Amino acid sequence: MYRPKIKVVDCTIRDGGLANDSHFTMETVRAVYEAACRAGIDYVELGYRNSKEMFSPDEFGLWRFCDEDELRKAVDGIDPGGTKLAVMQDAHKAVPEDVLPVDESVVDMIRVATYVKDVDKAIRLANNATDKGYEATINIMAISHEGSPFLDEALQQIEEETKVLAVYVVDSFGALYSEEVQFLVEKYQKYLKTKEVGAHFHNNQQLGFANTIEAIIRNANFVDGTLYGLGRAAGNCPTELIIGFLKNPKFSIEPILDVIAKTILPLQATIDWGYHVPYMLTGILDQHPRDAMAWMKTDRKNEFVELYRELTEDPEV
Amino acid sequence: MYRPKIKVVDCTIRDGGLANDSHFTMETVRAVYEAACRAGIDYVELGYRNSKEMFSPDEFGLWRFCDEDELRKAVDGIDPGGTKLAVMQDAHKAVPEDVLPVDESVVDMIRVATYVKDVDKAIRLANNATDKGYEATINIMAISHEGSPFLDEALQQIEEETKVLAVYVVDSFGALYSEEVQFLVEKYQKYLKTKEVGAHFHNNQQLGFANTIEAIIRNANFVDGTLYGLGRAAGNCPTELIIGFLKNPKFSIEPILDVIAKTILPLQATIDWGYHVPYMLTGILDQHPRDAMAWMKTDRKNEFVELYRELTEDPEV
Repeated sequence: MYRPKIKVVDCTIRDGGLANDSHFTMETVRAVYEAACRAGIDYVELGYRNSKEMFSPDEFGLWRFCDEDELRKAVDGIDPGGTKLAVMQDAHKAVPEDVLPVDESVVDMIRVATYVKDVDKAIRLANNATDKGYEATINIMAISHEGSPFLDEALQQIEEETKVLAVYVVDSFGALYSEEVQFLVEKYQKYLKTKEVGAHFHNNQQLGFANTIEAIIRNANFVDGTLYGLGRAAGNCPTELIIGFLKNPKFSIEPILDVIAKTILPLQATIDWGYHVPYMLTGILDQHPRDAMAWMKTDRKNEFVELYRELTEDPEV
Repeated sequence: MYRPKIKVVDCTIRDGGLANDSHFTMETVRAVYEAACRAGIDYVELGYRNSKEMFSPDEFGLWRFCDEDELRKAVDGIDPGGTKLAVMQDAHKAVPEDVLPVDESVVDMIRVATYVKDVDKAIRLANNATDKGYEATINIMAISHEGSPFLDEALQQIEEETKVLAVYVVDSFGALYSEEVQFLVEKYQKYLKTKEVGAHFHNNQQLGFANTIEAIIRNANFVDGTLYGLGRAAGNCPTELIIGFLKNPKFSIEPILDVIAKTILPLQATIDWGYHVPYMLTGILDQHPRDAMAWMKTDRKNEFVELYRELTEDPEV
């Protein structure tokens, strides 16, 4: 009944790091890693391997850089089972030199995040990763803003020029409806004859999980989630819902429930993620959540009509 | 681009009344009613018209009974625009005698909630309503537990024996996935040649809105929501998301945003609805939320693994 090819990636620490500048404690990261391993999650992404020239280590936490020494501390003594370790590189904010040969690293997979316009940078980083022995994916962000033929060209290039396992549809703004998910997955499949399609959806309109199911129905085989939906603004498709949905008997939900209770819920004291009207509004308007995030920090956070008018104001042209 | 036949029903006060024994203040009900009217919502449901022999007025608030006098106070002086007023009768907890002829009432539509086993009672109440001049629907609850041929028989009976406008798929437990919504809407349509299909979805798995879209794609034309998802346990499909999705220019989202800010958010002080792991668990397990609701009231509310084990324990047979 289940589809063995489906791979679940828990990216709680990596994606959640956008909500706290990657300042998770080592204890939190170890707890998430151990839970993912015990639950049978296929990949656990513990952060970015981004450049210290682009991000100051004074400002950002360990998990923006994922130095090998820190990753080793995070996984030390924990049985990975079948779970592989991933880190992400931003196409425009990372360098190939920060990636060691795979046999000198605890990392198994490098995921390269990119905009369509940066696809050549992404291909360079992805090929650097596969040349050094890693698995790799390319994750195309802000896909709801990509109506141009350059998306088609980028997909064709990735198909021809890389050995990545999967190329992701990334709905950075939580704007996509199911029919658009279907359209995009089918477009990807048209070009990606030798690669899987991945699904990474944000939850501004409470559609993160539903769109992940839609992508699975359309034969996407890499799916991302975060624990309890932890992430910037409205957050992500919740990993626990993916595990509740998939029928593969290798998955166990109990370690997921346990780490949510003990490690993730306490983070609500400092990170206010989830469904809020301001994030919903940027979702339905297909906008970056930055204006909503700024609004949420003011004492006008519940003045939704005023925010809506600001977000929809026609700029003078 | 939009489908004019789609009717939106805001049932915040009626469905939300399951979370507070229908104890909303008159001020709250008037604010919700006015917002729905100003937003162009097609129907606003202000409560149950249930029997005072089944529910004690000492225990339950005004909106469990919706006496005509109270309804008149709720709508007095507010321009309804095109918005109609609905109340609900439970097939097994309401009586025909509590319904006046329509020209003596401010109510326009009576929705009858029923289980499949009570369909004959529902048909009696629905026919009582349409005979007295009201519009009517029949809403079949707990649909995820209805795998029997009795559902088919009930649909056939409703088609032949009533004049209701619509028959609802009601996912009381928030258990349905999109493929099941498609299956059920198509099954309904097979029998209901002269009636619309309605969609009422709960949000235990964050699928309330997504399943509503799925039903719309399959040509369901009556859709229910509540403001900010207010409702028992995980709550409902949020009305604001429906209005953000539908393209009919008659809808206006600003009154919805305004009433959420001023009237609904303050209710969070006394009603804890929304996505919580215990409600998620009863959703994925296709169970009534009552055990999760009881768990949430204990000091073990975050002991998710223990709850999961209790919910999945095999009873001795």
